Amino acid sequence: MNALEAGAGERPRFERLSRSAGARRGRLTTSHGEVSTPAFMPVATAASVKSLTPRQVEELGAEIILSNTYHLMLRPGADVVAALGGLHRFMSWGKPVATDSGGFQVASLSAMRRVSDEGVLFRSHLDGSLHSLSPERAVEIQEKLGSDVAMVLDECLLYPSDRTDARTAAFRSLDWARRSKRVRSRPDQALFGIVQGGAFEDLRRENARALVELDFDGYGVGGLALGEPKELMRAMTALSTAELPEDRPRYLMGVGTPVDILESVALGIDMFDCVLPTRNARNGTLFTSAGKIAIKNARFAGDERPLDPECRCYTCSSFSRAYLRHLFVAREMTASTLNTIHNLHFYLDLMKRIRLAIEEDRFAAFVAASKERFDDSAA
Amino acid sequence: MNALEAGAGERPRFERLSRSAGARRGRLTTSHGEVSTPAFMPVATAASVKSLTPRQVEELGAEIILSNTYHLMLRPGADVVAALGGLHRFMSWGKPVATDSGGFQVASLSAMRRVSDEGVLFRSHLDGSLHSLSPERAVEIQEKLGSDVAMVLDECLLYPSDRTDARTAAFRSLDWARRSKRVRSRPDQALFGIVQGGAFEDLRRENARALVELDFDGYGVGGLALGEPKELMRAMTALSTAELPEDRPRYLMGVGTPVDILESVALGIDMFDCVLPTRNARNGTLFTSAGKIAIKNARFAGDERPLDPECRCYTCSSFSRAYLRHLFVAREMTASTLNTIHNLHFYLDLMKRIRLAIEEDRFAAFVAASKERFDDSAA
Repeated sequence: MNALEAGAGERPRFERLSRSAGARRGRLTTSHGEVSTPAFMPVATAASVKSLTPRQVEELGAEIILSNTYHLMLRPGADVVAALGGLHRFMSWGKPVATDSGGFQVASLSAMRRVSDEGVLFRSHLDGSLHSLSPERAVEIQEKLGSDVAMVLDECLLYPSDRTDARTAAFRSLDWARRSKRVRSRPDQALFGIVQGGAFEDLRRENARALVELDFDGYGVGGLALGEPKELMRAMTALSTAELPEDRPRYLMGVGTPVDILESVALGIDMFDCVLPTRNARNGTLFTSAGKIAIKNARFAGDERPLDPECRCYTCSSFSRAYLRHLFVAREMTASTLNTIHNLHFYLDLMKRIRLAIEEDRFAAFVAASKERFDDSAA
Repeated sequence: MNALEAGAGERPRFERLSRSAGARRGRLTTSHGEVSTPAFMPVATAASVKSLTPRQVEELGAEIILSNTYHLMLRPGADVVAALGGLHRFMSWGKPVATDSGGFQVASLSAMRRVSDEGVLFRSHLDGSLHSLSPERAVEIQEKLGSDVAMVLDECLLYPSDRTDARTAAFRSLDWARRSKRVRSRPDQALFGIVQGGAFEDLRRENARALVELDFDGYGVGGLALGEPKELMRAMTALSTAELPEDRPRYLMGVGTPVDILESVALGIDMFDCVLPTRNARNGTLFTSAGKIAIKNARFAGDERPLDPECRCYTCSSFSRAYLRHLFVAREMTASTLNTIHNLHFYLDLMKRIRLAIEEDRFAAFVAASKERFDDSAA
């Protein structure tokens, strides 16, 4: 039985291997393989990392990817994916997959949403059709997709939200988490609760504690990276992880820039996902060891140097900045592919270096040195 | 010195290895490697085979690609490519490259063109800027690009054209061919003349004979596959190749469908280029051993079979029709990539089987059996 056929494996388990400062080095073992943490999950929204083949994603060394329940339930539908053998087989990706619950996409993408204690009613951004999602349904869909890590449905408020709304959403999300845990049935899938509570310290702390009592396989920290100040995001992350058990993985959802990742690892986060490297790639914004580059800039028209002389990805090993600019300006699809290969390599390489720095117990120094080199302000 | 650095190699040479019926099995040897003929050249219009990386093109087994002088002279410019080490290095493609002269694109793409005996004045389809191309300039540009096979500038008439225009264009193209040969200077580049003469037998025959007297390294058959009836295209191809020397490669420009290729090989053609496999791929039309498939068709929504069960490409080895349909419907860029991999594999595999059939002297039977399977009418 190969990894794509694994269906009835054991529940994913997490081991903490070492620490350095507040950072944790760990390993998530699933029936589709191991994930070294801290880990970055490239986003495969609609069961595809945009502009790459699964083989290219694997060659980049990604150990886990994230797909979106919201997108897949609308198209092609969870039943279609299930009938085709689940998400791994559907997209020919043999390594671990995480799925979010759709809570955030319903809040940010749907044409209309109405939230009640029962669940959420929304209109598809694709065709305006009416759909509902409940905590039970979100678990059912993710079990059909067959991801290795599933997330409970949460009510995700956009920033800023007032205290009353944040409190209502946090309590509702907690109740949904409880209901999610009750109906889960798949033995090979981890289910993560999600800490909510907006930007309110006491709500978030209280929410995290109650969630931990429910004893999830891991914990997401949600409702952040939505436009709030960075200091606030750090503070909310810190007080969330402070409440979470040491022996479970923590996943900061939708984060972030290289500096966000460095600082969040320092706060005890183990898993990340973000569209930044892939979306920026398609927009021609490229991460390098000396800061970001907008490849369309005319000054690169004759520049024969690789994007990042320190980088060993296929793009940097093979092409000049001039060629990459040419492809981007000519709107060649291959521009997106080569740029995505580079940006994902940058992120995955950063994670590798983070893990090594933790292993060698020099993480604080690594963060300080790295932050100087990255220039998030030019984002 | 690796292949990308080869600059002062020997002139490409052609050997005919065997024949079967009218078909020729041959080998074109260039300073960037050998090309087994009959060969299909994937089109890399703007120095990129759309939606693929050069590595993917190489993994598909392509031995030569075709780039466009018209596109590259406008963007990024021949001097830019030359300063970056030529086309091979620019696009990180170490194998042979052919370039057309721009004659056809000026006729079909430019916003305005004015042809005189001197050359052609035209406006760019990109920004309306004014450019000129002469036979001398077309050679100069292609020498700067550093292609292994260059084509003389021709005046390409769209079909139908009247006899007077066809005659004028054929004589002018012949004169341009003479001027091209006079100014060529690059020792490692083959220069091909192009047979013109529209749909007029005597003009084409006369043009071919005069061209052969000029003694080119190879010969293009031009001005076909422009909407004329297939029988006419076959007839014009046949009487062109009948005039061409046995020891030089013949290249049928812009052709064609799988059946076109089979029938043209039977008429003694050695080289082809066509956007059909790559453009069709992006439009979701896929070649299979049982005819063409429009992958967006709803009947594929739950179809777990590979595109073509007989095909061994990455796409067919890894993905279901349902997944490919999903990617296409969701407008994921990866749809273009996976579809292009399949369609190019189909073409390149067809060429491989054609070559084997010639070697084993069973080409006529191979054509008959293959034509039954391909359904060009559904194009």
